[in-house]
Amino acid sequence: MTAEIITIGDEILVGQTVDTNSAWIAKQLKLIGVPVRQILSIADTKEAITSALDAAIKSTDLVLVTGGLGPTKDDITKQVLVEYFNDELVLHQDISDEIEAYFKSINRPFLEVNRQQAMLPKNAAVVRNDLGTASGMWFKKNGKDVISMPGVPYEMKGLMKKVLPEFQAKYKLGDFYHRTVLFQGVPESILADEVSDLENEIRSKGISMAYLPSTGQVKVRLTATLERQEEIARYIEQIVSRFPGAFFGYEEDKLEKVIGKLLLEKNKTLGTVESCTGGAIAARIVSIPGSSKYFKGSIVSYAYEIKHSLVDVPNEDLWEYGAVSKEVIEKMAVGGINKLDVDYCIATSGIAGPDGGTEMKPVGTVWIAIATREKVYSKKFNFKQNRSRNIESTVVYGLNYLRRVLIGIED
Amino acid sequence: MTAEIITIGDEILVGQTVDTNSAWIAKQLKLIGVPVRQILSIADTKEAITSALDAAIKSTDLVLVTGGLGPTKDDITKQVLVEYFNDELVLHQDISDEIEAYFKSINRPFLEVNRQQAMLPKNAAVVRNDLGTASGMWFKKNGKDVISMPGVPYEMKGLMKKVLPEFQAKYKLGDFYHRTVLFQGVPESILADEVSDLENEIRSKGISMAYLPSTGQVKVRLTATLERQEEIARYIEQIVSRFPGAFFGYEEDKLEKVIGKLLLEKNKTLGTVESCTGGAIAARIVSIPGSSKYFKGSIVSYAYEIKHSLVDVPNEDLWEYGAVSKEVIEKMAVGGINKLDVDYCIATSGIAGPDGGTEMKPVGTVWIAIATREKVYSKKFNFKQNRSRNIESTVVYGLNYLRRVLIGIED
Repeated sequence: MTAEIITIGDEILVGQTVDTNSAWIAKQLKLIGVPVRQILSIADTKEAITSALDAAIKSTDLVLVTGGLGPTKDDITKQVLVEYFNDELVLHQDISDEIEAYFKSINRPFLEVNRQQAMLPKNAAVVRNDLGTASGMWFKKNGKDVISMPGVPYEMKGLMKKVLPEFQAKYKLGDFYHRTVLFQGVPESILADEVSDLENEIRSKGISMAYLPSTGQVKVRLTATLERQEEIARYIEQIVSRFPGAFFGYEEDKLEKVIGKLLLEKNKTLGTVESCTGGAIAARIVSIPGSSKYFKGSIVSYAYEIKHSLVDVPNEDLWEYGAVSKEVIEKMAVGGINKLDVDYCIATSGIAGPDGGTEMKPVGTVWIAIATREKVYSKKFNFKQNRSRNIESTVVYGLNYLRRVLIGIED
Repeated sequence: MTAEIITIGDEILVGQTVDTNSAWIAKQLKLIGVPVRQILSIADTKEAITSALDAAIKSTDLVLVTGGLGPTKDDITKQVLVEYFNDELVLHQDISDEIEAYFKSINRPFLEVNRQQAMLPKNAAVVRNDLGTASGMWFKKNGKDVISMPGVPYEMKGLMKKVLPEFQAKYKLGDFYHRTVLFQGVPESILADEVSDLENEIRSKGISMAYLPSTGQVKVRLTATLERQEEIARYIEQIVSRFPGAFFGYEEDKLEKVIGKLLLEKNKTLGTVESCTGGAIAARIVSIPGSSKYFKGSIVSYAYEIKHSLVDVPNEDLWEYGAVSKEVIEKMAVGGINKLDVDYCIATSGIAGPDGGTEMKPVGTVWIAIATREKVYSKKFNFKQNRSRNIESTVVYGLNYLRRVLIGIED
């Protein structure tokens, strides 16, 4: 059995909205062993919706549709689906009451457009939306399932969590097993070159292997049928053993999550002193639930005077070496240890661009330091990218630099 | 004329990668008046690529393909395209030399897999990639254009900037005009209800109107043919006049950009004191080029002790009222003014979740304050969302709160 995802909305076709729903849905389907044949984004027109449904029903078993269920007049999905499946819209009083109660609870007026959201198909199964006003609708035709959900990501996710167990019960298929390993700081082509012997062996055994690069990181994913789990585990181990410093985790691991675990294990605290990253490293650390157990705070010392007044970097160093220098970055990191009273501190200072570069320190020049209570490590990077990528690279390299210090592979 | 976008890659169909390329490409096409019929994501297989091309060439004039051009063995797009268009791969020595020189410049070894990237079609036009090793390829068949580009976003963007002017020259079509207005802090359904009379009038005149909600924000977009530009401008003005406090900009404006402009105009400086947002507001401000002209820095006072030691919030207030209170948030904001020596300071403190909520202060309870050198404003919010959305909402509401103070509509 296979699935297809259809997202409806002119906002996607004109590029105003990035379709993040499809990736999330695909990931959930993958976990229960349902391969996605394709993902299609189409316009808010009857013709586009109808012809996409015709094609999808012909070639897949399960069609997941998102979007076009809002209360505004440009959303026509519900009407088109009801006609397509020869159903009809009737008022679902229970849902109308629920929506009205919800609006009361958040002190917002219950409008006629909101009541329209309770006009739902008579025959299709209606899936309650606990996080919004647009219900899910589950249509069936020729043994195929078509499920329509709103496009608002968290509402769609809430509905998927309700319908997924039903898919699992209905379709019992040979599960796929996939394992992903994550590396930071080694380019895709070098990684591929250094495992090419292994890759040939892996592929010759019918296990698929894929590389997924992102800023400063590469994911390697192996996929095969469930019973080959142990074989995959052995290959993963061999790949990891070739890049001990770059390897940082599996699957959905994030550097900030891995760091959090290490700090909790060691019962140590963390702070940051950020210049070019402007708080982005701290924000990443804080994105992890429970980070208050190890993260104490940061000083974003963007201006020279803050580096001096709050982090105690001597003015002489700032003027002699400049803010983007080994001398200053190490003093920022050590200053963070003292001022924030933490066990580890990441410090960043660089020229993010587009302005501020010089011949000696072009845009993309970044210093990162990691201080402990005893020692300070520092390194210079040349990212040579645009502003947002220079900042993102600094965040990722800074986090992995700390991780390497935490596991004792920096000296 | 219409276009179709095809993205190739198993990583998209298993949900490991969100397809951000398509939205970017669609936006560029929209700007030159080329409507996108659909966006399709397919697997890295010969069959999927071939049948997607067959269908696309039948129904559109221009097909933009991204992905599958990497140096690794799972990338088969180039081979499939060359077969599909009866072309053949030959070594392009000039490109091989360029790639080799590039690798030398960044001190990385030039490997055989890298040289493979210079094996390119003999007949199709090759579009040089200045930001990576995978060239663009422009095939033609039956008067239709098919352009293949790598999936790495910035490389694809670099190539699009080269080919777009050629599209513009080749296809001369009636341009579309679209105008987008941005609102913060007014829900989509209330906005739609309060402009429903205008919306009916706008639609009756054949101008299309769409609502695009995101966390804490709604965009309203009007679209029609280019000659109706003034008519659209008048309607936009009427819509804006109904929500003076929520309206903050047009098109790609961002709150942090609008704030930067206001601060520059007033010649004032900004800092932040962040708890639950963990530096995310500062990072947003710093994402804007030139922000060093008005942004001085931040204190991320995540732990109680940092609120006291670095921001001078009295310990008695912290213990009596808690960190999430009017008393503490106002002292954080005023502390920021003094410690960072800035004219404006945004302060945030809240319970982002999933833990830490109480009956009196459930998860999602957030206080935001804006201090000037003379005055402090504060407000309580109840976002009732998950951790990441509570943080994101705090960032967006905090930025707009500052904007409202800056333009004098808070008292």
